[in-house]
Amino acid sequence: MAGAFALGFKQCRKIGGSQIRSLLRAKDVFLFDCDGVLWNGEAAVTGAPKVLRTLLKHGKHVFFVTNNCTKLRENYAKKFSRLGFTGVRPEQIFSSSYCSALYLRDVARVQGQVFVIGGEGVRNELRQAGIPVVGDEDEAPDATIFHCGLASDVRAVLVGHDDKFTFLKLAKASCYLRNPECLFLATDADPWHPLPGERILPGSGCLSAALEVASGRKAMVIGKPSPFMFECISSQFSVDPAQCLMVGDRLETDMLFGSNCGLDTMLTLTGISHMKTAQEYKDCDHPANHSFVPDYVVDTIADFLPAFEED
Amino acid sequence: MAGAFALGFKQCRKIGGSQIRSLLRAKDVFLFDCDGVLWNGEAAVTGAPKVLRTLLKHGKHVFFVTNNCTKLRENYAKKFSRLGFTGVRPEQIFSSSYCSALYLRDVARVQGQVFVIGGEGVRNELRQAGIPVVGDEDEAPDATIFHCGLASDVRAVLVGHDDKFTFLKLAKASCYLRNPECLFLATDADPWHPLPGERILPGSGCLSAALEVASGRKAMVIGKPSPFMFECISSQFSVDPAQCLMVGDRLETDMLFGSNCGLDTMLTLTGISHMKTAQEYKDCDHPANHSFVPDYVVDTIADFLPAFEED
Repeated sequence: MAGAFALGFKQCRKIGGSQIRSLLRAKDVFLFDCDGVLWNGEAAVTGAPKVLRTLLKHGKHVFFVTNNCTKLRENYAKKFSRLGFTGVRPEQIFSSSYCSALYLRDVARVQGQVFVIGGEGVRNELRQAGIPVVGDEDEAPDATIFHCGLASDVRAVLVGHDDKFTFLKLAKASCYLRNPECLFLATDADPWHPLPGERILPGSGCLSAALEVASGRKAMVIGKPSPFMFECISSQFSVDPAQCLMVGDRLETDMLFGSNCGLDTMLTLTGISHMKTAQEYKDCDHPANHSFVPDYVVDTIADFLPAFEED
Repeated sequence: MAGAFALGFKQCRKIGGSQIRSLLRAKDVFLFDCDGVLWNGEAAVTGAPKVLRTLLKHGKHVFFVTNNCTKLRENYAKKFSRLGFTGVRPEQIFSSSYCSALYLRDVARVQGQVFVIGGEGVRNELRQAGIPVVGDEDEAPDATIFHCGLASDVRAVLVGHDDKFTFLKLAKASCYLRNPECLFLATDADPWHPLPGERILPGSGCLSAALEVASGRKAMVIGKPSPFMFECISSQFSVDPAQCLMVGDRLETDMLFGSNCGLDTMLTLTGISHMKTAQEYKDCDHPANHSFVPDYVVDTIADFLPAFEED
């Protein structure tokens, strides 16, 4: 089966039955986004745990690439287990916080402290990698940017999801970034995430956008759609892009990530993006939009199951 | 004296002595930005109070156009008085919060509540205009976007400077903006403001950028460089753009505002922008940058004083 990448354009083909079977046979490595693909919040997508079990039983390699930076890999593995996905090891999970720690330690080789906008998940992932993180525990509740303390050895600012984001954190980060040698990283650039009841949760991309305006600089994004997470996988496991299928629910992150890494891509319709939007990107004259188009589309990854049963 | 606007391009001319005298004679209306022009923080620019007194003595009309949204006009007038600028009336002060209230009341004629990201200055300016503002006084300290209350009749979100900005405010505003009929306004788009000790204060532009990402919408900006503040002045006073001089310290807001309103512009070098940057904009091939170029440049508005003395 020739990958659509080899043909140079994405076909946005809704597939089922024998087409899924051929695709599953042709690919050895499956990269899954998590939320919207395997589960929604705390509810597993029906059949998804069985899909994972079956892929592993058939000797497939499975990795999880998630822009969620709020959990340590170990805690992410516990979520898999809690929702019925058995046998997932932390080593298979490439979160944007883990990959940020790898970037800071192994690529940037940062010397000094990192100022983190983000929760305990991302801070702990950095600490586990041996990277010192500026503490904010001793900040007085009425501290302001006029009088607060600023560490003198901050060499990077990392912005991730932070539901305790404040003006003071933004102001401190802005001050640190006045030093042009201070790196500016974002775990991801996700704009928002759906919540029950028509609400939305602002994503890390909002917070990094605020800091980009204050600093006049652009954040380097670690998570999808940047290819760095795939480089992290490649550096630890032997993976051939031609043998990989990237499965996700968001065109602007997951499908673009796949395109950026030269992977075949599959959109599953259990999450954020709709078939209609994918078609609109496909039909759009602007070539940049074609990178959002998936090669394949399924209603749910549970559509994989009949393909295995007929083996 | 032909205004540079009439000539179709800005000359960025450093002027003094007789050139200033001619300019002051030619203009009847002086629009001043405040911070960086009349004062820096709590210190008046040397000679600036006398400049204002002298302009008024010579029958000139003076207005103040400021993107600072943190004070009621009355309180702004008190700051003038405290720093030695005598005789300034609230009616001469066009702040971004006052003009936001005018827009909501007289242009948008908003029916319903306004959700404000901003301090008491902007909230009170809205209340004085009779616009109901969503209260946040009763919010529990551990409230989250998952469970907090959301008002059902919010018809506009207004973003201004807010040193008590939190993730929850951002999230609430994002939810309100899911309603396409809910207006999205920003008092201004200033990226940052200088603080003593090489620190910076993030501006309203950071907060509106965060909300733009979360909502996928663009804020309508009320303050400079949008021409709306000049429309507010024109609606209350008889002003001929050809008779106006806009004096400011920031190329990207003050000079662009003047250009957008068809006013002659003067950069004073007591604030943020430098002569070098103005020259770079002038020499730049990109026509859009020419709107940042001032017609005239002075070191300080105190350079006006000799012109009057020689009258």
